[in-house]
Amino acid sequence: MNDVVSLKARRDRALGAGAALFYETPLHIVRGEGAYLFDAEGRRYVDMYNNVPCVGHANPRVAEAMAKQQATLNTHSRYLHEGVIEFAERLAALHGPQIESVVFSCSGTEANEVALRMARFATGRRGIVCTNATYHGNSELVGALTHVGGARPETGEVHAFPFPETYRPIREGLSEEALCEAYLERLEDAIARFQASGAGFAALIVCSIFANEGLPNVPAGFMARAAEIARAAGGLVIADEVQAGYCRTGRWWGYEVTGFTPDIVVTGKPMGNGLPLAATAASRSLVETFRAKTRYFNTFASSPLQAAVGMAVLDELKARGLRENAAAVGAPLKAALTQRKGAWGAIGDVRGEGLFVGVEMVKPGAGKAPDAALAIAMANRLKDKGFLTSNAGAYNNVVKIRPPLVFSHGDAEAFLEAFDQTVDELRGERRHG
Amino acid sequence: MNDVVSLKARRDRALGAGAALFYETPLHIVRGEGAYLFDAEGRRYVDMYNNVPCVGHANPRVAEAMAKQQATLNTHSRYLHEGVIEFAERLAALHGPQIESVVFSCSGTEANEVALRMARFATGRRGIVCTNATYHGNSELVGALTHVGGARPETGEVHAFPFPETYRPIREGLSEEALCEAYLERLEDAIARFQASGAGFAALIVCSIFANEGLPNVPAGFMARAAEIARAAGGLVIADEVQAGYCRTGRWWGYEVTGFTPDIVVTGKPMGNGLPLAATAASRSLVETFRAKTRYFNTFASSPLQAAVGMAVLDELKARGLRENAAAVGAPLKAALTQRKGAWGAIGDVRGEGLFVGVEMVKPGAGKAPDAALAIAMANRLKDKGFLTSNAGAYNNVVKIRPPLVFSHGDAEAFLEAFDQTVDELRGERRHG
Repeated sequence: MNDVVSLKARRDRALGAGAALFYETPLHIVRGEGAYLFDAEGRRYVDMYNNVPCVGHANPRVAEAMAKQQATLNTHSRYLHEGVIEFAERLAALHGPQIESVVFSCSGTEANEVALRMARFATGRRGIVCTNATYHGNSELVGALTHVGGARPETGEVHAFPFPETYRPIREGLSEEALCEAYLERLEDAIARFQASGAGFAALIVCSIFANEGLPNVPAGFMARAAEIARAAGGLVIADEVQAGYCRTGRWWGYEVTGFTPDIVVTGKPMGNGLPLAATAASRSLVETFRAKTRYFNTFASSPLQAAVGMAVLDELKARGLRENAAAVGAPLKAALTQRKGAWGAIGDVRGEGLFVGVEMVKPGAGKAPDAALAIAMANRLKDKGFLTSNAGAYNNVVKIRPPLVFSHGDAEAFLEAFDQTVDELRGERRHG
Repeated sequence: MNDVVSLKARRDRALGAGAALFYETPLHIVRGEGAYLFDAEGRRYVDMYNNVPCVGHANPRVAEAMAKQQATLNTHSRYLHEGVIEFAERLAALHGPQIESVVFSCSGTEANEVALRMARFATGRRGIVCTNATYHGNSELVGALTHVGGARPETGEVHAFPFPETYRPIREGLSEEALCEAYLERLEDAIARFQASGAGFAALIVCSIFANEGLPNVPAGFMARAAEIARAAGGLVIADEVQAGYCRTGRWWGYEVTGFTPDIVVTGKPMGNGLPLAATAASRSLVETFRAKTRYFNTFASSPLQAAVGMAVLDELKARGLRENAAAVGAPLKAALTQRKGAWGAIGDVRGEGLFVGVEMVKPGAGKAPDAALAIAMANRLKDKGFLTSNAGAYNNVVKIRPPLVFSHGDAEAFLEAFDQTVDELRGERRHG
């Protein structure tokens, strides 16, 4: 504990206070292995939060590929390098034929920035449509999409539509089909306002599974229709797969879950198992227009190091069947959590796919009123029991379960036990509080 | 050669044609060691271009630190980690007392973006002043500074002043002191126009040694006065040390060469010897204001991997005396190149500090008219002789010499021989052409 207090004080000066830390009492993590993290006192935590180390913390194949490449060659991309080309080819081949070429970068922010600029150059128009509770990164351009239309006003170049969901629908009492139409109307309206303003409509960008919105159940057919509408208005469809992709849902891509075909795909977090690595993939024509307009060059991207590590991650996902594992472990975990809904009115909903599950905490009997404080309390209690989760969603009230893809049935069972204990404790305290 | 042609065709599809490659016939580099790169046929090249591998290609200390950390722990920054704190402390300590805290990121672009936004939040104003031939990165915000006022018009939020130089001064016939005043007037004008427009003045940003401008000799005292003027107008002074810093000039920082004290320091390229790693350092107050306004979080930054690799680079710079090496090898190299000025009228000027030297190519007897084609021809010929340079500068006519800091006296002597041969060949061809 002294250790944590003194480190925190040093950190407040070295990084500036306000650099975010998880949990009421922060963790001092010193080692990772597979789905586990260990603190300075040797305590083991089951990591149910980190999607970056998708093939496991300290994965040997990745660490070896990284070490070998760094000890052989690591330069910028203005020399030919076969590994870089092969990695781009392998990435493109994971999509349909519309995706041919790749622009590598170092972060999801950079890759989303490339995607938005690519769409603007290709269409000659400026307007970007996103949801009202999204997050796509931290640059000035990409950061302008954060919660626009929700927590802050739209701009002349960014419009929002309410994210599609069935749990708190924008209109009550509609059939799923009619609800779908209601959301599509709001999307159409966001596009039409650009056409009226003169900015014009360049692109629709969504996280394919609406992760930051809280993993909503999306009305059937919404995304296919949304993509049609965007294209009919002359815009492009950008799938942000930074959280949704790379086997997280039990499928390779989130757009397979919500059922649409993107023009531009953005990937990031899990690509390098911790090495900064991100990509924007599209048709060759879109990529070449972008390159011609910008002469884009990224010193650290498209490097032999990114390629070697990125391919080791692809190899490891395949060799260990981690896509299949995400589906096989995630489905019963979600089912078991769904059973808990009835047991406690504070568990309003359980959603997600594969190894990405959200447990929505609400105030019992209060019309689904979000309870962010309860979600935060859950994450802190679960941490004390050795299980690392966080909270997310449009109302910050969704317990976010998103472990490395090496997470096992045994880990899930142990978690469920801790989850039940946590629920019992918090229920008891509320009754007597 | 077949190898190069077929790789190029694959690359044009996988990355999109237009992804830049160096040299008329691109190189297929497969290995690096110290100051050397090796192509697929085993040919050795002396690397005189790459500043990213500052402690040498495939540096063992860095590769080992990277391998060890990746095999131990590599997570995001919302857990406490002593290495991250220590690295930030060590970085801040390399500056004066005004620099206290660090925001880590993954690229110079991201770090400059943080710097500009930090200045805007701190001042509550929007206007950025840069030079008319600069480059600070590739995002929409930072890319708006590229050649503004030179190749493209100023915007309401970005104004340019002509970069200070003595070789092609903005007004002929002035004393150095009067020339300094003439440039300062242009800077004052750029600031004043913001004050008049209502945007207000937020920051002056410069590469501390004006690297992209072509490493000009700056009129004595210019930067100290420029910083005073910026501060008197309520703005902040941002030193972009992505190219200038980390011992490149024989001093730790470029601002020591041009003689000013920055409020915000941006570092990137050499920090991780190839690992994506960048930083924005400033007073704790500036950093905390930025953090409070943005809740900035960068998934891959402030990681144990960045810290371990970044500290290995600092250790290696010190252990091998590479700052001293840059000064000791760079000075005679520049002196020897300066001697060549008289021998060929096409060598208009030789400038730089430490291991960053620029040779300005001009059309002989044509009033210093820049000769970019000749600089490009020099780089291609030197490549054929086994020495990798490039061309840069406001007119693209400066042969850019910027080797890894492990570059030796012997490498410099071998280069000078190749340089003389190249000059002889090109002079001969011009005479007979």
